[in-house]
Amino acid sequence: MSVNNINKGVTVVSEEVCQQIMGRSESFTAVENVFAAMAKNTAYNFPVIREAIGHEDALYGFKSGFDRDGMVLGLKSGGYWPGNVKKDLTNHQSTVILFDPDTGKLKSLVGGNYLTAVRTAASSAVSIAHLARKDAKVLGMVGAGHQSTFQLRAAVEQRNFEKIVAWNIDPDKLDNLADICAELSLPFESVTREELGAQADVIITITSAFEPLLNVDWIKPGTHIACMGTDTKGKQEVDANLLKKATVFTDELAQSITIGEAQHAVIQGLIKEADITPIGEVINGTKPGRSSADEITLFDGTGVGLQDLAVASAAADLAEAKGQASYINF
Amino acid sequence: MSVNNINKGVTVVSEEVCQQIMGRSESFTAVENVFAAMAKNTAYNFPVIREAIGHEDALYGFKSGFDRDGMVLGLKSGGYWPGNVKKDLTNHQSTVILFDPDTGKLKSLVGGNYLTAVRTAASSAVSIAHLARKDAKVLGMVGAGHQSTFQLRAAVEQRNFEKIVAWNIDPDKLDNLADICAELSLPFESVTREELGAQADVIITITSAFEPLLNVDWIKPGTHIACMGTDTKGKQEVDANLLKKATVFTDELAQSITIGEAQHAVIQGLIKEADITPIGEVINGTKPGRSSADEITLFDGTGVGLQDLAVASAAADLAEAKGQASYINF
Repeated sequence: MSVNNINKGVTVVSEEVCQQIMGRSESFTAVENVFAAMAKNTAYNFPVIREAIGHEDALYGFKSGFDRDGMVLGLKSGGYWPGNVKKDLTNHQSTVILFDPDTGKLKSLVGGNYLTAVRTAASSAVSIAHLARKDAKVLGMVGAGHQSTFQLRAAVEQRNFEKIVAWNIDPDKLDNLADICAELSLPFESVTREELGAQADVIITITSAFEPLLNVDWIKPGTHIACMGTDTKGKQEVDANLLKKATVFTDELAQSITIGEAQHAVIQGLIKEADITPIGEVINGTKPGRSSADEITLFDGTGVGLQDLAVASAAADLAEAKGQASYINF
Repeated sequence: MSVNNINKGVTVVSEEVCQQIMGRSESFTAVENVFAAMAKNTAYNFPVIREAIGHEDALYGFKSGFDRDGMVLGLKSGGYWPGNVKKDLTNHQSTVILFDPDTGKLKSLVGGNYLTAVRTAASSAVSIAHLARKDAKVLGMVGAGHQSTFQLRAAVEQRNFEKIVAWNIDPDKLDNLADICAELSLPFESVTREELGAQADVIITITSAFEPLLNVDWIKPGTHIACMGTDTKGKQEVDANLLKKATVFTDELAQSITIGEAQHAVIQGLIKEADITPIGEVINGTKPGRSSADEITLFDGTGVGLQDLAVASAAADLAEAKGQASYINF
């Protein structure tokens, strides 16, 4: 092992170091930049590999891509092992592997579990920053699992929220969110889904639902809603009619209409691909974002490999700068 | 870093260690076993990702799969960077990354450049072992680049060859092969392609040709020919009529008919997929191999991800057993 900068070998950033160094603002910047690059076509995602391997009921695969602006090339490899929880391991296991775009040589190995949560939270935060009303006061959370806590922490930094309202299918888990609100001195209220729609100016849905949890009529004018849970055919978090009523944005069009929240509205003929705006276009200023105070904006966050690569690359840079990376000769 | 076997972290096997420890017999066994598992459908390759990234004229991608018999899961990531040679680096850059099939956790990181050459050589060697006549005396080599030296060393161990004949588009490169023959005390002769066909009992083609180098009429009865160079649409090493005349075997049917040597014969309607036998069936004894002394057998070696994973897994096991692996906490 050597820390020589000329030929330091492969940078290794463990899960533990990622958790210590990777902040929300760095993640926000990395994700915002890569969404912008995607919209300029200087960054693109390669086809996703996803296989049921026929062992341990595991789903395994890769998300990969290349960002020519950020000069980030690589993949997130990993999957879902439902039996891991019994072994005291996270069910989702991810590793990000980066390569030098100039030579193809292995460059960095970065733990992907914590970063996956962080980049997903950064995605909805970017959507709130660019699409929510500036005067939003109430944040509504639908879902209270592990991911929701990251979503909440990133979202509250985007607007001057005065209250958090939340609903979860298992109300006991709402403590996950209530504890964070207590820590941040933010009033917290457990509500019905209808009440949540009536109160919230910004809503984040982060569930594994396969049926709509929010009725179109419950959402008030001017709301921004980030649908973050739907990443597979068949999953659904909100009424398909809400996508017709709202102005719809997404991270990646191709995923939005096939595996994202928009899949149902597209299948039902309520909207078409051309009705959906990549959020990178809003970031770049090439397409408008929110056009009026009464408009409902909806962000379909499907999750792309380039987000993983972007935050992992930022984490590797940060770990190197702070002397917390390790290096292997390879 | 720790060498504790209970929780030793991720195994790292560098290019250098791979070259020191990975022998031809271990590679042969690993590749033979995985071809057998593929034919039993206990091992399968995932779809291949291959992208022109629009930078440095690089082609980048992944080959991946899962072998339930060998319990090997992972991918070979890498590609072709044509400008590397000017930087004193190999143009082909590969890294094998293995995961624990029981948990999805990162298991091993293994240098893939040397192993790619070794596994490709093992593939033709397996075909010779199972398909060539036992009394083969003359080995013919078509192509004399870097890969051909690995092919030659692996091939000569399969039969009692008494002479090597060779042809290359650039005759100066034939020294690569002549030097090995001198080392092994094997007579070596530079010949025309027609002479090569007339003399050789076993032929290996290992070129990047886009047109047939061997005419069907030059190949004598009883020859075994391993076509190892064609791995892309458009490439071709032998007359398509040779695939009609010969009994054709392959590592993977799907690749053989689309990107392998068989693509041209299939397109021209000379053979169909059902005429091609996976070599794993021969290894398993579920399909016959050579049926007569006069039969021409042809092996279409396309190169599959599972070969890479198999030799990398064997290299990791060997490096651990010999105390030459290193470990990282991750």
